[in-house]
Amino acid sequence: VLRVTPGQPVRIGIVDGPLGTGVVLAADDTSVALQCTFEATPARPKVDLLLALPRPKVMRRLWAQLAALGVSRVMLTNAARVERNYFDTHVLDAAVYRPLLLEGLQQARDTHLPVVSIHRQFRRLVEDELASASNADLSMVADPASEASPFTAIQPATRRVLLAIGPEGGWNRFELELLRSRGFIGVGIGPRTLRSDTACVALLAVMHEALRLRGSRHP
Amino acid sequence: VLRVTPGQPVRIGIVDGPLGTGVVLAADDTSVALQCTFEATPARPKVDLLLALPRPKVMRRLWAQLAALGVSRVMLTNAARVERNYFDTHVLDAAVYRPLLLEGLQQARDTHLPVVSIHRQFRRLVEDELASASNADLSMVADPASEASPFTAIQPATRRVLLAIGPEGGWNRFELELLRSRGFIGVGIGPRTLRSDTACVALLAVMHEALRLRGSRHP
Repeated sequence: VLRVTPGQPVRIGIVDGPLGTGVVLAADDTSVALQCTFEATPARPKVDLLLALPRPKVMRRLWAQLAALGVSRVMLTNAARVERNYFDTHVLDAAVYRPLLLEGLQQARDTHLPVVSIHRQFRRLVEDELASASNADLSMVADPASEASPFTAIQPATRRVLLAIGPEGGWNRFELELLRSRGFIGVGIGPRTLRSDTACVALLAVMHEALRLRGSRHP
Repeated sequence: VLRVTPGQPVRIGIVDGPLGTGVVLAADDTSVALQCTFEATPARPKVDLLLALPRPKVMRRLWAQLAALGVSRVMLTNAARVERNYFDTHVLDAAVYRPLLLEGLQQARDTHLPVVSIHRQFRRLVEDELASASNADLSMVADPASEASPFTAIQPATRRVLLAIGPEGGWNRFELELLRSRGFIGVGIGPRTLRSDTACVALLAVMHEALRLRGSRHP
């Protein structure tokens, strides 16, 4: 892809392993020989995402952006306002989303491939599966009605965050109650309603900035 | 579009004016009569954006998102790493971008149509035109090399912000120096490199959250 020539250095990374530099020793049409020097493995992103499955077109656009912003885990779930046929799309095939996730990782120079899981039963996910799927010590649910900011929820001691983002029309009351009963704190980033892909990027960006600043006791 | 029937209430808004509610009096194939009640005009978004023109496909995706997140003004500029032919696209025609901006405003329930201007000469924009185009009292340039957060730059007294975001390959040294010489402070949101549309959404979200929290002396 890169049309490398011998002697040329290229940036490399091993999935879930270290970043490094490779110097091209030889290259032909089918293979490239590299002499590799590895550096540190990047830190695992501190955010897990629980996302009500958006429509396929939106989900396709999101994969690379999620990996670039940094999520350790992506749990895609059903919800009352998610249409059932969204689960039939090939955008949920690993063969489709893995290259998109890798594209996002390359952009951000990370190697941690987000772990993806798909959950057709919201209640079972929250009641039975979540405790083992995420080891976050702080869970938040994006709620436009909430005035609390991720910045007030995240404490200097917070290590990992689980963020739940609902479908285009929002979680219904049962879903929101269930999340709250499991310790999810409602957070928002202001009164403007955003499209679900914009909301994901916006909330993840604010979350990471809060973790970066609170972690260093910065502001 | 909404297939309204008499008696039905619909949310309405006048561009650059108030939001309100309209009750349908009569509707046929070509017209709808509404009895309108107007409420307050939303506050003008506190962020102006100076953006190196991204490639047309990316710019098209951005319009609605910019309006939804809230920008008062969008100045699209040339830069060394912007390809000249990007300026020839119809994505810069008001006939194309205005409906996309309106879509974003509807989503966010705002009425302030961002003022759009296109600048083919970066230097002239920064040296001669910027002072009259934006009345921001704080100017920032997104710089991946900067560790300063928008949260540390924005003060409780900050009223309006001008944010400059460079092209996919970054501003060159001359451009960055010129911006700094005009008072732009370098800010970043962490070490990950983001695609320019993701970066726009992420930075605008963090900026608005910083304005929201700092303004209320919140965190």
